[in-house]
Amino acid sequence: MHTRDECVAADRADVLAPLKQQFELPPGVLYLDGNSLGAKPRAADACAAAVVAQQWGQDLIRSWNTAGWFDLPVRLGAKLAPLLGVAGQEVVVTDSTSLNLFKVLAAALRTQAGRKVIVSERDNFPTDLYMIEGMMDFLDQGYALRLIDDQLSLADALTDDVAVVVLSHVNYRSGAMYDMAAVSAQAHACGALVIWDLAHAAGAVPLALSADGADFAVGCTYKYLNGGPGAPAFLWVAPRHQNTFWQPLSGWWSHKRPFAMLDRYEPAEGVRRYLCGTQPITSLALVECGLDIAAQADMADVRRKSLALSDLFIALVRQRCADHPLALITPEAHARRGSHVSFRHPEGYAVIQALIARGVIGDYREPEVLRFGLTPLYVGYADVWDAVEVLRDVLDTRAWDQPQFRQRAAVT
Amino acid sequence: MHTRDECVAADRADVLAPLKQQFELPPGVLYLDGNSLGAKPRAADACAAAVVAQQWGQDLIRSWNTAGWFDLPVRLGAKLAPLLGVAGQEVVVTDSTSLNLFKVLAAALRTQAGRKVIVSERDNFPTDLYMIEGMMDFLDQGYALRLIDDQLSLADALTDDVAVVVLSHVNYRSGAMYDMAAVSAQAHACGALVIWDLAHAAGAVPLALSADGADFAVGCTYKYLNGGPGAPAFLWVAPRHQNTFWQPLSGWWSHKRPFAMLDRYEPAEGVRRYLCGTQPITSLALVECGLDIAAQADMADVRRKSLALSDLFIALVRQRCADHPLALITPEAHARRGSHVSFRHPEGYAVIQALIARGVIGDYREPEVLRFGLTPLYVGYADVWDAVEVLRDVLDTRAWDQPQFRQRAAVT
Repeated sequence: MHTRDECVAADRADVLAPLKQQFELPPGVLYLDGNSLGAKPRAADACAAAVVAQQWGQDLIRSWNTAGWFDLPVRLGAKLAPLLGVAGQEVVVTDSTSLNLFKVLAAALRTQAGRKVIVSERDNFPTDLYMIEGMMDFLDQGYALRLIDDQLSLADALTDDVAVVVLSHVNYRSGAMYDMAAVSAQAHACGALVIWDLAHAAGAVPLALSADGADFAVGCTYKYLNGGPGAPAFLWVAPRHQNTFWQPLSGWWSHKRPFAMLDRYEPAEGVRRYLCGTQPITSLALVECGLDIAAQADMADVRRKSLALSDLFIALVRQRCADHPLALITPEAHARRGSHVSFRHPEGYAVIQALIARGVIGDYREPEVLRFGLTPLYVGYADVWDAVEVLRDVLDTRAWDQPQFRQRAAVT
Repeated sequence: MHTRDECVAADRADVLAPLKQQFELPPGVLYLDGNSLGAKPRAADACAAAVVAQQWGQDLIRSWNTAGWFDLPVRLGAKLAPLLGVAGQEVVVTDSTSLNLFKVLAAALRTQAGRKVIVSERDNFPTDLYMIEGMMDFLDQGYALRLIDDQLSLADALTDDVAVVVLSHVNYRSGAMYDMAAVSAQAHACGALVIWDLAHAAGAVPLALSADGADFAVGCTYKYLNGGPGAPAFLWVAPRHQNTFWQPLSGWWSHKRPFAMLDRYEPAEGVRRYLCGTQPITSLALVECGLDIAAQADMADVRRKSLALSDLFIALVRQRCADHPLALITPEAHARRGSHVSFRHPEGYAVIQALIARGVIGDYREPEVLRFGLTPLYVGYADVWDAVEVLRDVLDTRAWDQPQFRQRAAVT
């Protein structure tokens, strides 16, 4: 596409375009940060009001049964399952991604007696590394964390003392994507299990966890799944591990008979054993609004549009911002790219702030990285065109070169 | 009080009575289950709408800074602090009670090298025992759980190999309350630390964690603090333990420099180190509505009214339901009673269902226990009178003796 008119025409032909109407986006904003916090489904207001006014306010404690609060983590998991390429009764929505990683890592290590190495990558989302460190330190049983520096190093890292490999399917910073089937096969060949963090993948790229041989997966519902700020995360376990799954965060909601008030723990059969304590019902219920929109889209269409949007974005930036020191850090090969595009720029932080001030919302990640989420459910081709024009203008006019754009906010 | 008119007069003289107007309670309901799910503050609807419509829908990712999402766990902790008798920068609102117990137990055990016994009570809220079991099993370092059967056995259980004592300040079933200062002194004398679960105490009874020598505390915001269904819990650490506090659930939100994206974990200074992963913002924000009402009440008034309500309830049940096999299991001594009252009845489950059908909402706990929460912020003396009259009628007419009242719901 070489003109804005061509982009408008592409939007008109886009089978996903009607779904944008189901989101509410602020006027005057081009929102390219759905990879950090997904936009709000219009249905969310009524959903929140129903939970607060009716379920809490009027039905009170009875809502555990009448509004199905107790089944919510499992019911939402079943709605999410198709997006992960798994069956309905294999996944739950609960807790945070960090906590769910702790659970599946504990479960994985337990079945890998004698293997003392955990492989991950230096560039993984930091909280994943922190949770691994926390567990190793806590166990004090001689575990070691082996960090690879790039995907190619994985083969060398997979020695026969590796218990588990913990990787993000799509990298939070660069948008680089792993070949899940290939990595699973590689890890299994050396006797290791694989845990996938799908925070930047679920809802963004087609997933086939079962077919691709994954062992465990965790991920986020508030990015491409549009579940709301800090919405509870998800946890999936391959059926072959379900009956041996054991986790130390063994709270009441995972008990076989949670209302018998027994003094000994016994895990529930099936997916309920992945739960822990009481869930934040209002935030949890809101997840359904995002899942209901995702269910209306064919993931093949989402992927096709995602790649087209990011191809367009990369091409336009190259063409329109050629005089500026922007370095693409996202892989260009489709098979290796998620749904966001990142560039380095020496003044990355200030550039992002200047863009936000003009209504183009991307975000910044250390070091020097401008990150743009291209969410096919509510971002169109003309949006990409317009965003690049604003970027070009901000760079050409050095609009970013203002003290207020250099001043770091508490949260970047 | 011997007549309903006397109860009405007592309500008229009640300094806390005006606070009831800040809650919305369904018409025709006497809600005696605030010990399970607190009633909805009227302000909650607008709060939820503001978070969903404005902060999420309009301000999107910017709300991390502009709406103070990042500071929310600490800011709410500071609002909660006076109710716990602690300083503002000592407590956070985050995660679930079960998870927070895991954190403080890990921290406590770490400083108690060589001590391998954890003391709790058989009658503790089961999830607390399950979390302890989960941790012991995970660590596999020879820890043992020693369960006492009653408060008097604590002295015998406190041998010099006890690392930590984990107790509920107010028992979830019986409403029996521990003397926190005495237990702390007893435990410290043998070198043990004490973790208090305040789920049924916070907002219900005056607390002075610091003055009473507590080491760690966790608890719930959705019961007497009226924070909303499944609202995030709290975690307090005595200042003397703050700098050595270490927990294995070391997610990004507890990192010293969470946005530097470092690959090594380093805990934040101060209370932020008690956090883990991303919090459910909508549910978390709602906690403030309940705390804002609690801040308007003097806890001495709350306690005085709570005891008067439960004295009245016990006296009326004895008088009006004398012919029925109701056995009080709540201590009568004020110093040993929390803010709910429980009776055993051989048909307890059916009796509670029949009461609920008549609009008197209490709840049932195994075995055979009818539990009635008397929440001074929105329950009055005439409410207690009316509830006992319904109980009397249900028992006198055997209204509970219907198949539909015996049929167990999924959640009891």
